[in-house]
Amino acid sequence: MDITDSSSINVERFTARREALRLLLREKGLDALIVSLDANRFYLSGFELQDHQVNESAGCLVIRAKGPDTLCTDARYHAAACRLWDADQVFIYGADSADAIAAMIKKSLPSGAVTGFEARIVNVALYQRLALALRLEPADGLVEQLRIIKDADEIARIEKAVGINHALMAWLPSVIPGAEDEETLAWGIERFFRESGASSLSFPSIVAVGKNAALPHAIPGKTPIAEEHCVLVDVGCRVDDYCSDQTRTFWLGAKPPACFLDTMDQVRSAQEKAIAMIGPGVAASAVYAAAWDYFKAKGVEKFFTHGLGHGVGLQTHEGPSLNPRSQVVLEPGMVVTVEPGLYYPEWGGVRWEYMVLVTEDGHRVL
Amino acid sequence: MDITDSSSINVERFTARREALRLLLREKGLDALIVSLDANRFYLSGFELQDHQVNESAGCLVIRAKGPDTLCTDARYHAAACRLWDADQVFIYGADSADAIAAMIKKSLPSGAVTGFEARIVNVALYQRLALALRLEPADGLVEQLRIIKDADEIARIEKAVGINHALMAWLPSVIPGAEDEETLAWGIERFFRESGASSLSFPSIVAVGKNAALPHAIPGKTPIAEEHCVLVDVGCRVDDYCSDQTRTFWLGAKPPACFLDTMDQVRSAQEKAIAMIGPGVAASAVYAAAWDYFKAKGVEKFFTHGLGHGVGLQTHEGPSLNPRSQVVLEPGMVVTVEPGLYYPEWGGVRWEYMVLVTEDGHRVL
Repeated sequence: MDITDSSSINVERFTARREALRLLLREKGLDALIVSLDANRFYLSGFELQDHQVNESAGCLVIRAKGPDTLCTDARYHAAACRLWDADQVFIYGADSADAIAAMIKKSLPSGAVTGFEARIVNVALYQRLALALRLEPADGLVEQLRIIKDADEIARIEKAVGINHALMAWLPSVIPGAEDEETLAWGIERFFRESGASSLSFPSIVAVGKNAALPHAIPGKTPIAEEHCVLVDVGCRVDDYCSDQTRTFWLGAKPPACFLDTMDQVRSAQEKAIAMIGPGVAASAVYAAAWDYFKAKGVEKFFTHGLGHGVGLQTHEGPSLNPRSQVVLEPGMVVTVEPGLYYPEWGGVRWEYMVLVTEDGHRVL
Repeated sequence: MDITDSSSINVERFTARREALRLLLREKGLDALIVSLDANRFYLSGFELQDHQVNESAGCLVIRAKGPDTLCTDARYHAAACRLWDADQVFIYGADSADAIAAMIKKSLPSGAVTGFEARIVNVALYQRLALALRLEPADGLVEQLRIIKDADEIARIEKAVGINHALMAWLPSVIPGAEDEETLAWGIERFFRESGASSLSFPSIVAVGKNAALPHAIPGKTPIAEEHCVLVDVGCRVDDYCSDQTRTFWLGAKPPACFLDTMDQVRSAQEKAIAMIGPGVAASAVYAAAWDYFKAKGVEKFFTHGLGHGVGLQTHEGPSLNPRSQVVLEPGMVVTVEPGLYYPEWGGVRWEYMVLVTEDGHRVL
């Protein structure tokens, strides 16, 4: 009935991450940081990876430059928190959570201390309560700066998730012809993931037939899987907390039209050129540009309506982004998707997505 | 390949809801409202019910007291938005979304106009950009004020979801004895929901054996389903966009101990007393008090560590809350859970949850 041994290993990993964050706090002149983003909280503590309603939080961490660190949550999570965290540093709040957390932090720090917070996560109402008691400073991206580089253990977890995704993609051509509609195929995919060992999907599956494939974020519906249409499948799973994300586009039928074949050729070529660029020291924006420049040369760049890719880890979408505005320079341990796509409302579209690890000497397609 | 007929019915429903909201804006002296919460956005537009990462949004609505209303999103959702919304009023933003939305709103309103925003949802960084261009005023809860009363169509959808939940709970006693561990039972439950017509779970299933049942928000793990232990199952599904939520606690084995039987009796009695209270004009806090007072009389109130219940609809957790601080007075069309629980770290706990509709003349357990 007790928690498994692996948890004790995790505790050490979480402690090491908090020590790394503490160095960043000192560099930034922060006495403490309130960590609110669910994935950041989990990365540092193992506590509750996902807040499942955007307007509900299981709690936050308070990381202090000189320690100790406090896990703040409500009574429903008290016992769970004490399984992961020194019970003396588990802070249980009631209905007045903001005021209670602010008072607790204030008491623990010298007067005039500066507390960082995640301004892209903390809502205005919460901020206004905290600001009554604390000297606050926006401090976004500090935990993300650690998360963006995956260690060997994290890469191994990602590879487990990607492995199941590869098996899924290999299995799909045999089941697509017999599938009824987008919804039923999406459910078949979810069953495959779960019965192969995934704990969940990493994001809601996209299964889009025909014109629906022109919607980069299509929701599977009752559209039948019909002969002589494209079928776009963008799906991923979560294994040992880490995510995978892959897209393939199939043609169901013996007569793929020239528009589909040409688009497929362009998308795969753009992807190849982008992946060839990837390595340490390369600007993320340059990887995007490699794909965009290729599409531009073919005169189709305006049908490429989204970024080229994004980091993947505890979240499906995290840093670094491969887009023209990115300031990130690639480093070993980063994991990104490379997913060019071209979309045509008249018939659909093509997207193809690999996950790529930046290595010491270049890259490895996972 | 086209969207189904039911969508055109929806469009009228969404339009009517926006007209109702417009009346509230005028009452509050707001010229516009930025609607950011995913479920509120969907309630008024049918656009994207759930943002699946807490730090990513598919967009927002701008509802103007004198119309028109604008759907703001990014290029990935452009085609999907145009299927639901007048294309002239679909606003596509790029990387500088906050500045672009602020400028678009500013241009559309007279100078000095006041724009409401959801202060409990909008993050500080976004707020600071919007505030550079707009006269902003916190205006939380306006859409929720509409959502809290369900119409006949919404109640029918909720009842479909609850119906599948009842079937699941009736099926469980036959499968619990043969289930391996919490995780595998949770997956069996999810399969049952999906194969019965649900589009998804409404929230991550809680399946907790023995001591784990003392964690009100337990995550299913490798704990085996073992004889002579309690098994707490708190699960729900989503059907036609609406959620269900039910909890049952079973004893696996022929020898339930007195602590379990007594706790079960107390929980069911508290629930019965609370449900008996429910009707129009009754304070939500009084319903909570009915359960708490009963536990207090039995000397176990300190083991009841959470609220008594919450509203259910497009979100699993929405208004009204049944807790001692609630200011809500019940009205016909509200749907709430009634879920008292008592938790004992030494052996587990018991929770029992029904969904209850407030009717014109009292209540109906769904």
